[in-house]
Amino acid sequence: MAWNNPRDSALRERAQQVIPGGMYGHMSTSLMPDAFPQFFERGRGCRIWDVDGHEYVDFMCAYGPNLLGYIDPAVEAAANAQRVLGDALNGPGEVMVELAERFVATVSHADWAMFCKNGTDATTMAMVVARAHTKRRVILAAHNAYHGADPWCVPAVLSAGTLPEDRAHIVYYDYNDAQSLADAMQRHAGDVAAVFATPFRHDVFLDQEAPDLAYAQNARRLCDETGALLVVDDIRAGFRLARDCSWSLIGIEPDLSCWGKCFANGHPISAMLGAERFRAAAGSIFVTGSFWFSAVAMAAGIATLQQINETDYLERLTSTGQLLRKGLDAQARTHGFALRQTGPAQMPQILFHDDPDFRIGYAWTAECLKHGAYFHPFHNMFLSAAHTPADIARALEASDRAFEFVRRKRDTLAPPAQLAHFFEMLAHA
Amino acid sequence: MAWNNPRDSALRERAQQVIPGGMYGHMSTSLMPDAFPQFFERGRGCRIWDVDGHEYVDFMCAYGPNLLGYIDPAVEAAANAQRVLGDALNGPGEVMVELAERFVATVSHADWAMFCKNGTDATTMAMVVARAHTKRRVILAAHNAYHGADPWCVPAVLSAGTLPEDRAHIVYYDYNDAQSLADAMQRHAGDVAAVFATPFRHDVFLDQEAPDLAYAQNARRLCDETGALLVVDDIRAGFRLARDCSWSLIGIEPDLSCWGKCFANGHPISAMLGAERFRAAAGSIFVTGSFWFSAVAMAAGIATLQQINETDYLERLTSTGQLLRKGLDAQARTHGFALRQTGPAQMPQILFHDDPDFRIGYAWTAECLKHGAYFHPFHNMFLSAAHTPADIARALEASDRAFEFVRRKRDTLAPPAQLAHFFEMLAHA
Repeated sequence: MAWNNPRDSALRERAQQVIPGGMYGHMSTSLMPDAFPQFFERGRGCRIWDVDGHEYVDFMCAYGPNLLGYIDPAVEAAANAQRVLGDALNGPGEVMVELAERFVATVSHADWAMFCKNGTDATTMAMVVARAHTKRRVILAAHNAYHGADPWCVPAVLSAGTLPEDRAHIVYYDYNDAQSLADAMQRHAGDVAAVFATPFRHDVFLDQEAPDLAYAQNARRLCDETGALLVVDDIRAGFRLARDCSWSLIGIEPDLSCWGKCFANGHPISAMLGAERFRAAAGSIFVTGSFWFSAVAMAAGIATLQQINETDYLERLTSTGQLLRKGLDAQARTHGFALRQTGPAQMPQILFHDDPDFRIGYAWTAECLKHGAYFHPFHNMFLSAAHTPADIARALEASDRAFEFVRRKRDTLAPPAQLAHFFEMLAHA
Repeated sequence: MAWNNPRDSALRERAQQVIPGGMYGHMSTSLMPDAFPQFFERGRGCRIWDVDGHEYVDFMCAYGPNLLGYIDPAVEAAANAQRVLGDALNGPGEVMVELAERFVATVSHADWAMFCKNGTDATTMAMVVARAHTKRRVILAAHNAYHGADPWCVPAVLSAGTLPEDRAHIVYYDYNDAQSLADAMQRHAGDVAAVFATPFRHDVFLDQEAPDLAYAQNARRLCDETGALLVVDDIRAGFRLARDCSWSLIGIEPDLSCWGKCFANGHPISAMLGAERFRAAAGSIFVTGSFWFSAVAMAAGIATLQQINETDYLERLTSTGQLLRKGLDAQARTHGFALRQTGPAQMPQILFHDDPDFRIGYAWTAECLKHGAYFHPFHNMFLSAAHTPADIARALEASDRAFEFVRRKRDTLAPPAQLAHFFEMLAHA
């Protein structure tokens, strides 16, 4: 289908002049199908518009932050009420205390909260608190799990400019492999400060995996036995699986949990929460940032937590996620494809069987995009509470035409060139 | 004078329950005189109100972010125009390109820009870019200089939970000591990736020092000779000394510069800027954050840079700073005190002669506060363009009464207990 992005192209050219590579970080489209726009004009509900005016039913939600819908009226009203008073002042406002109170009341393992800006701030704080509390050094994290972009945790394949010392005492185990975790624990017996775990496996390019109960219980037991802290990194999944820490669903309480992205519905704030016995260690570390105590994002967080606790947002985004999953499966069968739809329906990963170099997935997501549905070819996606059954139906119209396209063109599809270099780096990382 | 903060006290009690230590980071009042409020209600122009309704002429500007006045109408209009379109989307808006273009046009050494959230993000990115470009390890930074709160740079005295490996290859020299820098460079010959410098010495508890020209020129020359990158950390001072990188005033161009705090007048955003020959290295590193590409703070940045370039904001905040300095000096003499007013008048540090344990300074700033002027007892302060001569006159009324108070009470003042422990830690760090 004809596809023109003249404003996006012009902006990319301008960006090449003043931004290294034209863009950087997780929102760079450098690995995405060519059709994907780099620059966006606006968002509302579950819809986004790129700078060329194309409208999409959006399934990325700004890579998570959009939980209730872009520009949710209640959240924005709370933010605006604070904004006319002030944002960054010489100290926090009452909103900081109220947000901490609401957060602690919502998350069952937590007795206290600390706020920051980036998800990476929260995971880094968790590492430092664990080391302060235990006086030990080793952090166990799962291979390939994403815990942020600081030198200690940036994915090895992307680690230009970092040193081996930056990840000294960061030791890797295999997610969902209880034995691998036990072995790592054993190898560093007496020196393990913390075990990091995402609530489920949501690595890029791979099928997502629910947490194996034996693995998760083993993590809790090993931490209890050794005094290491169990840290659940709920930054990506938080509040899309439960109105609590995601591992509450399998009956496991972490010692610390990390939060970000969506708990202020897109306003910039993240958090680390912890249990009582780690309060002193948390109070002993020095962490801060110029905008960590700004009031507007906190007011937005209070309003978001209120909806999390008082509305059926979770049931709605779960049921629309299931609607999407069922619809896509039926379409795929009709067109002779088999999808690997993994992870919770509200955070779906959608990959194609027999598509090792992603040529089908890339062609399909590009075609979905051109027909008005923004799906991601290798990263888990996100539903919002603003998605309605009508939005899912609209997205399924797009996906149906995309399935038809890739069925017709299947034999002519080429592997995405932008991935070849990346996969080569991955192989050597 | 009678001083009641019942709402602040009540909030502190609530905060103690749900935030470790009740508060953390640079805005914690734990080291401040007892009178200082922890929680604030609102800000407007150069005035702030605490939660008990006390109004202050503010000389901290939220520790820097407030450059043009709290809730500057033009900046807020630009932010609001973006806000109704969207903030965090699936990619940046045109505002990212425009902000980078304006920033690069404003800062003479810079050919490109990267945006982030915390000042620490910017300094950490500079470290990583320098290592990526040079393939070397050592970062030279000045003793006591503050470059952020990540484990690699958190002040040693505050480093609970960090490891020696976190600051492997971070080597310290003495600010303004050309020989000390040359020696450090020599000791690590062939392995120095970057020299970090703040534009002037703005360490807490100490007199501020302008950069010694021989030291600064030596830093530039040593970097040129060895291929190390000169990084000016302008996060605290940026745009309060010049409409350019602060070292433009002494004719020295860094390779990278770090910016934060005030270039979006309080909206949360920071940046690293660099020269052309480091573009490839900057494009090779992986750095990102959930909210780094959000549009509202970028729109606010564009509007702030516009005022920086097109108004006399700098002349105004400089002249009101000078008015304050002169007025305080005259008052001090009248009351029999000698002040050490150091640093640029627009970023003053105000300490008392013969006050080694800060008992006079603490009593004086507490009394200024009670009479309506918010001064800091040990951290450099900040003027904003919203301060008028009338605001300075109002602050000088407060300070005059405070001088009178400390003159009367001088012999009864006790050393601030909250500092004793900190100074002891400092002595052992």
